[in-house]
Amino acid sequence: MTKPDLTDLTAQIVAFRDARDWAQFHNPKDLALSLSLEVGEVLEHMQWTNGDALTTRLTERREAVGEELADVLYYTLLLAHDLGVDLETAFAAKMARNAEKYPVEKARGSSKKYTEL
Amino acid sequence: MTKPDLTDLTAQIVAFRDARDWAQFHNPKDLALSLSLEVGEVLEHMQWTNGDALTTRLTERREAVGEELADVLYYTLLLAHDLGVDLETAFAAKMARNAEKYPVEKARGSSKKYTEL
Amino acid sequence: MTKPDLTDLTAQIVAFRDARDWAQFHNPKDLALSLSLEVGEVLEHMQWTNGDALTTRLTERREAVGEELADVLYYTLLLAHDLGVDLETAFAAKMARNAEKYPVEKARGSSKKYTEL
Amino acid sequence: MTKPDLTDLTAQIVAFRDARDWAQFHNPKDLALSLSLEVGEVLEHMQWTNGDALTTRLTERREAVGEELADVLYYTLLLAHDLGVDLETAFAAKMARNAEKYPVEKARGSSKKYTEL
Repeated sequence: MTKPDLTDLTAQIVAFRDARDWAQFHNPKDLALSLSLEVGEVLEHMQWTNGDALTTRLTERREAVGEELADVLYYTLLLAHDLGVDLETAFAAKMARNAEKYPVEKARGSSKKYTEL
Repeated sequence: MTKPDLTDLTAQIVAFRDARDWAQFHNPKDLALSLSLEVGEVLEHMQWTNGDALTTRLTERREAVGEELADVLYYTLLLAHDLGVDLETAFAAKMARNAEKYPVEKARGSSKKYTEL
Repeated sequence: MTKPDLTDLTAQIVAFRDARDWAQFHNPKDLALSLSLEVGEVLEHMQWTNGDALTTRLTERREAVGEELADVLYYTLLLAHDLGVDLETAFAAKMARNAEKYPVEKARGSSKKYTEL
Repeated sequence: MTKPDLTDLTAQIVAFRDARDWAQFHNPKDLALSLSLEVGEVLEHMQWTNGDALTTRLTERREAVGEELADVLYYTLLLAHDLGVDLETAFAAKMARNAEKYPVEKARGSSKKYTEL
């Protein structure tokens, strides 16, 4: 069975919203704000812990963190939809740009920004 | 031609990273921080503008905002990968939970939180 | 009676921390992360509401929002302290720079960025 | 000479704004959003660096980071003003609550949340 692509996932979100007549409450700023707050919920799981202790904690909380990441994906797809952004195309363009900015032979093993390579 | 699903997009990101030997610089907290900063770049496009003026601005800047949303997707997928989260499953579980929390007949046309429905 | 200045407020925070021997848990990134999460708690009070409805809600929740803003101030002062930043001087410098960037005669009634004035 | 307290600093910000007739552009959500973006600019200085390397970098960039923290303070004070929050009182209340939640004898040397002490 084929797995859902970004268009399929977005269609699920929009169908869910339209069945509830919620588009009237949505505007780009509040959607982006919700996206930001969901990222905050991911970050909360990482507060005051680092290194191995953080790895252990995130393993224990994998399901909870996964829920927050699903929320992040949800608002990313919905916001892209409402702004008329084709996210799959934007993503492919971004990957192509990154490959140009960071050629393997120059960027390998370096944490420098492309402007400093 | 089939379109890429979340696993395919994630594989692209990880291949890009591994070709550059960058995993050594990545840890969950810095990845989540980058995710947060990319959401900030989306929000910057919305600052001090609202209503129709915001809609106009976001239409004019669709490509630029799309790039930022692609960055958000990039870090969401990479973070999920590094934490061992199956984002497609987490997303499906989230949609199922939302459908339970917000049944159409109760939630239709209402902006109330599920705890108040 | 004189009211506390930034130095006094910072001294209160540092005394509170040192009495509990908590400096060992603090590092700049986690402090800045906490600052970010507290700003998120301010923003949560504003989600999905705008205009007069937002004004009404924020008036009703003034005390709760004030608590979150106090948390924001707390981490701002503590982070400045730990980084050796003299926030009073930095603030005065910023106000002077803003006055140069936005001269009254040019900026009055305009929402343009200084680079466009 | 006495140093400025929170009320003095807030009065400077409001006088600056009123001289430029900028209150018409301000609303709580955009102010809180600006606050969030300024915190992002603090966090940007900390991206992909940790431990001693982070300490070194933040020392080198102390002035730039101080400017961002001054921006954070600016929006915190302005938002508190516009919402009718007495930030000095809110801060004192918060410190008193924290002292109750984290008594020295219980909290000393522990990173536990007060609900677990």
